[in-house]
Amino acid sequence: MGKERTKVSMAVIRRLPRYQRYLDELFKNDVKRISSRELSERMGVTASQIRQDLNCFGGFGQQGYGYNVEDLYNTITDILGLNRSYNTIIVGAGNLGQAIAGYTNFEKSGFTLKALFDVNPKLIGLRLRDIEILDVDTLPDFLHQHKVDIGIMCIPRKAAQQTADILTSNGVRAIWNFSMTDLDVPADIIVENVHLSDSLYTISYRLNEEELFNKIDKN
Amino acid sequence: MGKERTKVSMAVIRRLPRYQRYLDELFKNDVKRISSRELSERMGVTASQIRQDLNCFGGFGQQGYGYNVEDLYNTITDILGLNRSYNTIIVGAGNLGQAIAGYTNFEKSGFTLKALFDVNPKLIGLRLRDIEILDVDTLPDFLHQHKVDIGIMCIPRKAAQQTADILTSNGVRAIWNFSMTDLDVPADIIVENVHLSDSLYTISYRLNEEELFNKIDKN
Repeated sequence: MGKERTKVSMAVIRRLPRYQRYLDELFKNDVKRISSRELSERMGVTASQIRQDLNCFGGFGQQGYGYNVEDLYNTITDILGLNRSYNTIIVGAGNLGQAIAGYTNFEKSGFTLKALFDVNPKLIGLRLRDIEILDVDTLPDFLHQHKVDIGIMCIPRKAAQQTADILTSNGVRAIWNFSMTDLDVPADIIVENVHLSDSLYTISYRLNEEELFNKIDKN
Repeated sequence: MGKERTKVSMAVIRRLPRYQRYLDELFKNDVKRISSRELSERMGVTASQIRQDLNCFGGFGQQGYGYNVEDLYNTITDILGLNRSYNTIIVGAGNLGQAIAGYTNFEKSGFTLKALFDVNPKLIGLRLRDIEILDVDTLPDFLHQHKVDIGIMCIPRKAAQQTADILTSNGVRAIWNFSMTDLDVPADIIVENVHLSDSLYTISYRLNEEELFNKIDKN
């Protein structure tokens, strides 16, 4: 199942990137300070939730009234490890792999895409943003020669476990898994599964909520 | 900002698809009942969290010891509105749009893709899984002729607001927004933004956590 244990609960960790996004927007809008109440209202969480979350990482938080936007942004950026750089590769250069390769914002945040890999001879040798699509057979060799921190898996379910094995036995420390299947990896490997359906299903919930509660309230 | 208010907090709503996935897996593994403790351990949330979440939707939950897996799965499926069908379109038939069009699992859950739209003449007229890519200029006409519930936006930031305006002024009730920008929509429209970076940043956090706490503990 990979590295399940984190010192701070995943629920807290998952809120940090959202805090960072909101703070970034405030900073860009030239907001210097923000009260904890205002910040919490914007983000739809309680002020005490924000305080508790930040307290997991030591003693920052409110000084005087509210937060200094830039300081808090920088602190959260550091906590998220976004003050350093990571080498990534994408395995599976189909539509999704190419879409992810196209997100240049990831590069700006320190994630450098070193190569893509695919089995399809029509894709092998092509370049995306000057990054080559290589034959997946060369993946182990590539990993011997390059330090890769994060493997991004955009391949079909049936090839997923085998690819995860190659990645993890050749020094890759984390897998960003879009393959819609659970992976069996050593205990020190980080796996982050992306379930786009979770996001879609919140839409069907919300389209349906009023009717749902009309039914519940009647019972 | 669109429809911000839900009767149940978004934090609860976002946990429901995860519950459903775990229950689906249990069901497929022929597990009939599960204690609330075991369910909570598998999912990494507390038993009381699960109870509280389910209590938002009325009186189900534990009967005797633990949960009946099939019943709870069906209940959550109903709550998520996955017992009905939704018509969707994708605006932006680039890599990401094509990748999403390829997720046949969405169809199985009741989301029927009616068409894709793009500005690129090279894409217009092509078919994906027998679904045509249409000229985005025909989008308003298409929306007059077809009931579309959810518009999936996979277009660059600069075209996003204009497209959202066309969708929402022509009967689309919800937008699944991959355009990496906030949308200004009427109050009764549901917007679900997908921020893939939030998921990626939990990886950099975890790669960095041990060092982070070594530093925090020293202070």
